[in-house]
Amino acid sequence: MKAFMDEDFILQTDVAKKLYHEYAEKMPILDYHCHINPREIAEDRRFENITQVWLGGDHYKWRFMRSCGVEEKYITGDASDKEKFMKWAECLGKAIGNPLYHWSHLELQRYFDYHGALSKKTAEEVWNLCNEKLAEPSMSARNLIKQSGVTLLCTTDDPVDSLEWHDKIAKDESFDVAVLPAWRPDKAMNIEKPDYTEYIKKLSEVSGVSITSYEELKSALRVRLDFFSSKGCQVSDHGLDYVMYEPASEEEIEGIFTKALSHTKISALETAKFKTAFLTFLCGEYHKRNWVLQLHYGCKRDNNKPMYNKIGPDTGFDCINTYTPSAQLADFLNHLAEEDSLPKTILYSLNPNDNQAIGTILGCFQNSDAVAKIQQGSAWWFNDHKTGMQDQMISLANLGNLSGFVGMLTDSRSFLSYTRHEYFRRILCNLIGNWVENGEFPEDYDILGEIVQNISYNNAVNYFGFEMLK
Amino acid sequence: MKAFMDEDFILQTDVAKKLYHEYAEKMPILDYHCHINPREIAEDRRFENITQVWLGGDHYKWRFMRSCGVEEKYITGDASDKEKFMKWAECLGKAIGNPLYHWSHLELQRYFDYHGALSKKTAEEVWNLCNEKLAEPSMSARNLIKQSGVTLLCTTDDPVDSLEWHDKIAKDESFDVAVLPAWRPDKAMNIEKPDYTEYIKKLSEVSGVSITSYEELKSALRVRLDFFSSKGCQVSDHGLDYVMYEPASEEEIEGIFTKALSHTKISALETAKFKTAFLTFLCGEYHKRNWVLQLHYGCKRDNNKPMYNKIGPDTGFDCINTYTPSAQLADFLNHLAEEDSLPKTILYSLNPNDNQAIGTILGCFQNSDAVAKIQQGSAWWFNDHKTGMQDQMISLANLGNLSGFVGMLTDSRSFLSYTRHEYFRRILCNLIGNWVENGEFPEDYDILGEIVQNISYNNAVNYFGFEMLK
Amino acid sequence: MKAFMDEDFILQTDVAKKLYHEYAEKMPILDYHCHINPREIAEDRRFENITQVWLGGDHYKWRFMRSCGVEEKYITGDASDKEKFMKWAECLGKAIGNPLYHWSHLELQRYFDYHGALSKKTAEEVWNLCNEKLAEPSMSARNLIKQSGVTLLCTTDDPVDSLEWHDKIAKDESFDVAVLPAWRPDKAMNIEKPDYTEYIKKLSEVSGVSITSYEELKSALRVRLDFFSSKGCQVSDHGLDYVMYEPASEEEIEGIFTKALSHTKISALETAKFKTAFLTFLCGEYHKRNWVLQLHYGCKRDNNKPMYNKIGPDTGFDCINTYTPSAQLADFLNHLAEEDSLPKTILYSLNPNDNQAIGTILGCFQNSDAVAKIQQGSAWWFNDHKTGMQDQMISLANLGNLSGFVGMLTDSRSFLSYTRHEYFRRILCNLIGNWVENGEFPEDYDILGEIVQNISYNNAVNYFGFEMLK
Repeated sequence: MKAFMDEDFILQTDVAKKLYHEYAEKMPILDYHCHINPREIAEDRRFENITQVWLGGDHYKWRFMRSCGVEEKYITGDASDKEKFMKWAECLGKAIGNPLYHWSHLELQRYFDYHGALSKKTAEEVWNLCNEKLAEPSMSARNLIKQSGVTLLCTTDDPVDSLEWHDKIAKDESFDVAVLPAWRPDKAMNIEKPDYTEYIKKLSEVSGVSITSYEELKSALRVRLDFFSSKGCQVSDHGLDYVMYEPASEEEIEGIFTKALSHTKISALETAKFKTAFLTFLCGEYHKRNWVLQLHYGCKRDNNKPMYNKIGPDTGFDCINTYTPSAQLADFLNHLAEEDSLPKTILYSLNPNDNQAIGTILGCFQNSDAVAKIQQGSAWWFNDHKTGMQDQMISLANLGNLSGFVGMLTDSRSFLSYTRHEYFRRILCNLIGNWVENGEFPEDYDILGEIVQNISYNNAVNYFGFEMLK
Repeated sequence: MKAFMDEDFILQTDVAKKLYHEYAEKMPILDYHCHINPREIAEDRRFENITQVWLGGDHYKWRFMRSCGVEEKYITGDASDKEKFMKWAECLGKAIGNPLYHWSHLELQRYFDYHGALSKKTAEEVWNLCNEKLAEPSMSARNLIKQSGVTLLCTTDDPVDSLEWHDKIAKDESFDVAVLPAWRPDKAMNIEKPDYTEYIKKLSEVSGVSITSYEELKSALRVRLDFFSSKGCQVSDHGLDYVMYEPASEEEIEGIFTKALSHTKISALETAKFKTAFLTFLCGEYHKRNWVLQLHYGCKRDNNKPMYNKIGPDTGFDCINTYTPSAQLADFLNHLAEEDSLPKTILYSLNPNDNQAIGTILGCFQNSDAVAKIQQGSAWWFNDHKTGMQDQMISLANLGNLSGFVGMLTDSRSFLSYTRHEYFRRILCNLIGNWVENGEFPEDYDILGEIVQNISYNNAVNYFGFEMLK
Repeated sequence: MKAFMDEDFILQTDVAKKLYHEYAEKMPILDYHCHINPREIAEDRRFENITQVWLGGDHYKWRFMRSCGVEEKYITGDASDKEKFMKWAECLGKAIGNPLYHWSHLELQRYFDYHGALSKKTAEEVWNLCNEKLAEPSMSARNLIKQSGVTLLCTTDDPVDSLEWHDKIAKDESFDVAVLPAWRPDKAMNIEKPDYTEYIKKLSEVSGVSITSYEELKSALRVRLDFFSSKGCQVSDHGLDYVMYEPASEEEIEGIFTKALSHTKISALETAKFKTAFLTFLCGEYHKRNWVLQLHYGCKRDNNKPMYNKIGPDTGFDCINTYTPSAQLADFLNHLAEEDSLPKTILYSLNPNDNQAIGTILGCFQNSDAVAKIQQGSAWWFNDHKTGMQDQMISLANLGNLSGFVGMLTDSRSFLSYTRHEYFRRILCNLIGNWVENGEFPEDYDILGEIVQNISYNNAVNYFGFEMLK
């Protein structure tokens, strides 16, 4: 029997152990997609207790606690931090098979040097140990990032953001990790939302462009794209229910946009047409600037309205949207190819059933612009666990070029989540180790080591092309 | 090599063996969903031969025989019982990888003490052995239930049923297994069916409520709900093509119902609206009574019309319906949450591709009403095999709270099917054993044993809350 | 550790090794579906170099090279054969987890006796070795087929084809492998295509039937069906986006066909109606003639229009179509059953998520016409790899009769692809070996050996019923 989460955690074969310990483990981290608040880096935030770090905003943990029948009071309510932690520890102790179990224990091991198992029984001990440790200067936001081996990270930012905190971080010479913005213009695209005109007003102000037409909306966005570029941004990100393709004339789009500005109701088809045009426009801009497009789709958000009304979005009430037609995704990418405006693209579906369709779509649009120009993103959100990551990598290997994969990202709000890169690398090395041990690939460490190090770090460096990592 | 289906069947590791033999094996059975005919329990049915038990109504076996090219005469036709058994034995002997192979041999082992392999070669021997054994009193319906360790079972019953057989069983002090009705009102919901008005007439008679409006239909159903409650019923069950959400006003529903009563054709959209309203109403009633809602969906029935015309429904001609939109399921549950009428709910889709979407939907509606208030049901029907059960449990573990899972049910018409609980528990223990042996969870039998025993039995006791098990 | 792709490649257990080496390995090949050009067999084509064999038309390899960022010049462009090979070798060396890695090395081992690993490092050596070998007479098209143990193969042919090359092969007594046509009438069905009337004209000429109505189209097709029958054809094949069911009257179909002949635009619904009627008609004809129907669906073709315009169809720009409703497939098969015109049928979906729905649909239409009359085809195209084949066989075993499976086909344009039958058999033996070693099926080689040999070859002989193999 393997010991519980020891240094060979997940690594079942000698090849896997060698690949992880000699090749993968030491590679730095390029975290090209996260939701960290840049202000917390700029101010080098400190944490009073482990509840703040773990349960302050982590809707994964909240969902799990609700599944255990815990009262909301102990989740997002007014219970004390210690009470919340005790409830969480009790839940986690039974969280067999859930990725939270591994994520939490990897964090306890790497950041708190705790190698036991958190449960009701050990909750008090862990509470004290973590809080003592958090009082040390090594546990500030910046030090956590540094000790994790991060060379560069991209936050997630709205086109209207001032990026002032990114500026402050960039100017501070005491911190040498690059913290770049990523462009997430969902609010500018979601024409069907009630607060759309309000957002457009804000965008107009920030860009200095009066926006009374779709043409002007594009001008305003170009201003902001240039601004983001000037801050080192090279990555965009879009969240969509599904990737749609509903072509329409520029006139029709102008008409739809005008309706929206005058608060006239937009139909579902009009919404799809507008979003198709909007995304097409931005992809052309990304392509010109050599930015990477990330498409996150297959999600249906805020499903529990009573809870949404109480505690708002991103609190653990989202689910997989099973309507993600491959035909529209392929047609949309083809449309970009026809207009010669298809940027480097990473596709993420929340529905793991889409793995194979995505794998076959990638292959339709690859060319010599980049190694694996169209990527399937690493298993996302609800799929970010051992089976999800394995399935994504096996599917990608079967259908495409695993060796060109840009690999892992944290997608997290927390400064402790870098261990998910470790988790990913262990799973990667184990998968490859199994293939080699089973005689399916030669035991040639020149090739294997290169593949593992590329997927762990080098591919992302080459693919995104950030100046400061060259 | 492991011996063929010995005491460690399915159990690949020492941890798995310990968990099964020391914790799971001895737990009783709460079979909260089956299709046993209560009359056969009341009358303590006996069986003349193994063909009656195995091939009398088991469409799983019929399907398999047809797949082997066997003539219908030997399946549901007029061949002799012995001829049918000989054909079945020949088919089963080659049924490698099919769950029927394991189900049948577990039944041969546990109820007939036969530990060989049934095939053409051993058919005669098994025929004789089983028929001799069936002549013993220990093989009556009640004795089979008792020796299987069942404490309580729920049959499947229509709102118009008299439940007279349940009464007889309850009054009989010589049989101490609780046999409760479960409420399955599909006929009252299926407004599009040609015999709908006939059914409504029957419901009117049985309830003593004249039904000329939807309002009165609801009154009649309330009468029957109270009647079922008085017989100890706490579980409902619905069979749906898919879980739909098409909201409509009460007036519109009244109009649709009136059309149906006057034999006017109902459109597909009207049908969906009626079913949405009908199910919403009943869910409110379940919630008030603290009943559990079971939703079985993703099935398309009676696909072979020529065979349907010959031998009727439930004869092996159903298939998976791939249209099961997660968006409508989530919207329907949200609607119940908004009306504060969401009961404890178990979701079963016949399409295993829905595992992950369901897993994410559960999490949107959990609260402190119960541990794992919204459940994903155990792998159902066509998924009731080793890979299906593993996949369901891995998905549930990844996305939710496996330790709160209410576990297995037989869903069967047969008195020998309780071995499917054994099959399930072996698969559960093996899965957990693999995790522990692989260092993914601590080898702590206080926690592991509790999890295994809870999923085997205790969770169901707590979740359903039957009086007599308290 | 197992050695790299040695004689026990894929075979993890002793049972698997015994089943493969003693039972499967020696069985001949019935390749009932391929895309080999019969002219190349008739003329006994020779190859100048390995690039011609491997990269001349293999869009699987082209896709992979594009995924590696190789310029199109080295793929389908004007680079030299040697340059192309060197690029390919470099890509393949890193193709970990991709089926091309195994396919290519099996071909190097079996046809070129090369047992190393092809990569950048060994490219020169392999280039020389292969080209020397290709100069030998044993490497002609016919000799490759013969040494592969093929007894019969079916090419893929249009109803208007003259089948002259099949005649020439049949008459040549020096070559005793049966080479039969298979009927692929996609062009006669695709009424929505711009060149449809042109095709109908050609069909009219070849059949000698003037085609001005749908009734006449059917007459013309009957003439060609008889012609194909006279050449030994017993297999048909259809490529569909999805299997649709849109019933319509004969009058309506005549109207749609007339519109198409007069170049009037046909709606999507009309197209679906026409295709439903067309396929229904042909199925009746197949059933009368005891032909096998193959339905290949779930594919969206030619997604990259700029590349299509440059290099045409079948060049690596196809993807999975996720719209494949099980309800329409079941309704279509039921319609055939109702008209007593359901032929033996093999279903292939490009979407592996359809495995389970297909498995349940098979069971609705089995009868004593044949063992496993309705088959699920072996993992197709993008699924033709270890995990894809395993998943298809596990699903088929769970839901149907694996022992009646007609097994593998190459679906290839290449004379070296027969090693895919070896790959398939190894995967089959390994799967069964695991079940036996795990105690899930008895270690009875009478039964196991028969199952393995039947799936490898005998089932196909019995199912298709080709005269010359009786």
